[in-house]
Amino acid sequence: MDYQVFDTTLRDGAQREGISFSVADKLAVARLLDEFGVGFIEGGWPGAMPKDTEFFRRARTELDLKHAQLVAFGATRKAGTDVAVDPQIAALLDSEAPVVCLVAKSDIRHVERALRTTGDENLAMVRDSVAHFRAHGRRVFVDCEHFFDGFRFDPDYTASVVRAALDAGAERVVMCDTNGGMLPSRITAAIEDLTARLGIEADRLGIHCQNDTSCAVANTIAAVEAGVRHFQCTANGYGERPGNADLFAVVSNLQLKLGLPVLPDGCLEKAVRVAHGIAEIANIAPDTHQAYVGAAAFAHKAGLHASAIKVDPVLYNHVDPAVVGNDMRILVTEMAGRASIELKAKELGVDLAGQPEALSRVTKRVKELEADGWSFEAADASFELLVRSELPGAEPVRPFALESYRVIVEHREDGAVVSEATVKVRVGEQRVIATAEGNGPVNALDEALRQSLSAHYPALATFELADYKVRILEGSHGTSAVTRVLVGTKAAVDDGWTTVGVHENVVEASWHALVDALTYGVDHAV
Amino acid sequence: MDYQVFDTTLRDGAQREGISFSVADKLAVARLLDEFGVGFIEGGWPGAMPKDTEFFRRARTELDLKHAQLVAFGATRKAGTDVAVDPQIAALLDSEAPVVCLVAKSDIRHVERALRTTGDENLAMVRDSVAHFRAHGRRVFVDCEHFFDGFRFDPDYTASVVRAALDAGAERVVMCDTNGGMLPSRITAAIEDLTARLGIEADRLGIHCQNDTSCAVANTIAAVEAGVRHFQCTANGYGERPGNADLFAVVSNLQLKLGLPVLPDGCLEKAVRVAHGIAEIANIAPDTHQAYVGAAAFAHKAGLHASAIKVDPVLYNHVDPAVVGNDMRILVTEMAGRASIELKAKELGVDLAGQPEALSRVTKRVKELEADGWSFEAADASFELLVRSELPGAEPVRPFALESYRVIVEHREDGAVVSEATVKVRVGEQRVIATAEGNGPVNALDEALRQSLSAHYPALATFELADYKVRILEGSHGTSAVTRVLVGTKAAVDDGWTTVGVHENVVEASWHALVDALTYGVDHAV
Repeated sequence: MDYQVFDTTLRDGAQREGISFSVADKLAVARLLDEFGVGFIEGGWPGAMPKDTEFFRRARTELDLKHAQLVAFGATRKAGTDVAVDPQIAALLDSEAPVVCLVAKSDIRHVERALRTTGDENLAMVRDSVAHFRAHGRRVFVDCEHFFDGFRFDPDYTASVVRAALDAGAERVVMCDTNGGMLPSRITAAIEDLTARLGIEADRLGIHCQNDTSCAVANTIAAVEAGVRHFQCTANGYGERPGNADLFAVVSNLQLKLGLPVLPDGCLEKAVRVAHGIAEIANIAPDTHQAYVGAAAFAHKAGLHASAIKVDPVLYNHVDPAVVGNDMRILVTEMAGRASIELKAKELGVDLAGQPEALSRVTKRVKELEADGWSFEAADASFELLVRSELPGAEPVRPFALESYRVIVEHREDGAVVSEATVKVRVGEQRVIATAEGNGPVNALDEALRQSLSAHYPALATFELADYKVRILEGSHGTSAVTRVLVGTKAAVDDGWTTVGVHENVVEASWHALVDALTYGVDHAV
Repeated sequence: MDYQVFDTTLRDGAQREGISFSVADKLAVARLLDEFGVGFIEGGWPGAMPKDTEFFRRARTELDLKHAQLVAFGATRKAGTDVAVDPQIAALLDSEAPVVCLVAKSDIRHVERALRTTGDENLAMVRDSVAHFRAHGRRVFVDCEHFFDGFRFDPDYTASVVRAALDAGAERVVMCDTNGGMLPSRITAAIEDLTARLGIEADRLGIHCQNDTSCAVANTIAAVEAGVRHFQCTANGYGERPGNADLFAVVSNLQLKLGLPVLPDGCLEKAVRVAHGIAEIANIAPDTHQAYVGAAAFAHKAGLHASAIKVDPVLYNHVDPAVVGNDMRILVTEMAGRASIELKAKELGVDLAGQPEALSRVTKRVKELEADGWSFEAADASFELLVRSELPGAEPVRPFALESYRVIVEHREDGAVVSEATVKVRVGEQRVIATAEGNGPVNALDEALRQSLSAHYPALATFELADYKVRILEGSHGTSAVTRVLVGTKAAVDDGWTTVGVHENVVEASWHALVDALTYGVDHAV
């Protein structure tokens, strides 16, 4: 029977302090999750959150999901209200998501004190809401909020909520450890108790764990071991408070330790890339020490292990790092390994298989740059330029040479804030000076650079700066911080490409990324 | 019967990439661990590591431990060597630590391939070494390296290593999940199997888990539930690869969930302070999202909860945060409502309870600003200034008035990248012009602003820019993107405060955040 890998990065994960996804970010995360092969992507709460309403609207035309179905999250109807006229319910239908996941109160104390209604009305709310969506042809999951705490306090009531949801047509009823206080043995015991009380199989249930005891992953595994087949996770465990169960750890454990084929073939090895890609979009530094996907997850330090590892990696790695797209590091270094680089280059259309020296040069350059804070994970175009610059005959053409630039930002006495940039470049034989204004220093610089090149490269007129991300990276070993900039560029005939720049000065870092963006775009346009 | 809380931050935890404890650091960490009430502090490997030899030497006179005993870590004697002349063994005795913890190979494959000796010789190594230290009056623990992998591969051999250690006088034999690949249910099964085979009680055993499956805490709990009473952890889960079992999560779970009195009275509430203190010494940023002790561990967001929390905190916190020395924080978010804002203001010392009009004004302003991209979630200082600016009589004093500023970034012909800022301000009656350079446009602006104010506000000299974060936020409804900047400032007598600034221009956004930072700092300094 199938497992349901249900991801809620975009709904529950977004509750994490510091995360603020734009609609474009949400679409990008959804694409990555779909690549990773999850079965369900809970996209948000349409109606309640304007950005989420917009996400579901745009998803209809902009998301082409291969593995996942989109899920709209919401709540059961309001107490004392007819489900047919409840606006929150209507908004879920309007989202046109094929699946809805409804949160229902399942702890009688919350029903009485937070919702201020009766246990019976709450059951009616569950039944009416589930039936309503079933009648409209939606698949329905029900999230039993505070399930375990409620079940401990009043097991009969909580079990009756589960029964009501199942009887009304919910495909699965999810036991949510909303306060996150559970331990694995207690999860197992609760599932055994509940299934016995209701006379149901555990596969009618789902599990959703928060990480307040630092056991979310283990709790999720325990539930699956008890027969549950639907589990809710978030990428990198993002979520409120100590977060949610980490998708990558849960899936890797289930697939590699328990031998359960929870993802489609070929998906697990994308774990590192997807984990880091989502972190980039969320603008959160990836956790170096994260299980399976962290840069240091398989990095063995010196001492008892290092020399022996080379002889017998199996003796020291609990799994082969390659199965999650990671690799083993002996020295304290960054991520780049020859195999990853060769694979990545191939993905971008550059075949290094028969060119070991070029591969070595590229690997060395990537390592050096990564030590300085560069990261090519989310910057394919910069990576391609780097690889090709090491391949005689395939080097990209540099469209210009920089002489100098100057950027000025002024906050004037009248309160106006203005940005102006001047670039002096050499294009072929010609020296060009261009000045432009912008809504910020980098925008002004970008405008000035394009202006200086537009006569020579008409294709530039079709390029559009689509995305701009900045991250400040802590300096290592006492050096000062550096800034990493990612620039996304789109063109009329191209979905877009991303480039990177790193420097202690944000303007200079942006310059690098902009130059790579224009170089790549011009190179691909001819 | 007593539990043995065995901390190995200074030995195994120190393997974490990026940690490098000086001897003074180790002594400071040991004092904190002792305050927290652990029973054993594994201080290092004297003889093998010079800093550790020094640590044990200085500990004799400089450490006055109230709860813990110091443990010297080492290995069983070398194969084919008499224990009495083995220098590594002698160094452990020389350390004068009352307790020794010896790592022994317990996986026959490691015995044969890594040690290049026989299973029998390995057993003799274990017996001889344990007996030697017992004869010298030391308490002895034995760490069975790769226990679970070895036990799965050749259970008879691995069990014989445990037997040999116990028979020779080891107080407890520790099952180490060295590769970190275990899951809780497998820990339980292994313990049941081992104790049955050897006809021993589980309390003869200890547990040491690595976190490669993200289950180290849960695995440790499972072992204790199976009757094990000695467990090895590290502060904040520091360690190689994904680290070790987090001491604070393990102890909090055992004490608060399982009701086991593993620490002396009054110690658990020091968790937050000890966790953060050790992070400071290790020079690692505390994990905001760490269970129990993280700053966000009890921070509630979301419309579903915030208003209800006021009514009934018990319904939303899995434990009372105060028992670990933490507290509940309400996050001021996109979903800000009056209740969240009132709670937040109260947390910052501003009571809006009896001032509904002021609360309305503040709520309205927060919503307007948030719609423009402002976020006060991680910017308490800016939020406090905003709230007080709406309260007649409590308004913050503005230390200066801006006339104008100008920031220049140049990439010169010789390749040098320089940043320079000039500010013109009015401080009281005086007009001040200051110019400074920096490693980027914002750094230059910050330096110039401080320079302009330093004569009037000497306290500024103690402020230090500690953190700087930039996020580009997609414009909503077709408007262009805005930049949100968070600035963290520290002072000699203050842990630090965070401020925010939002504008389409990153320099102007930074300006706002810097001005708030200085305003708040000066206001609190008087």
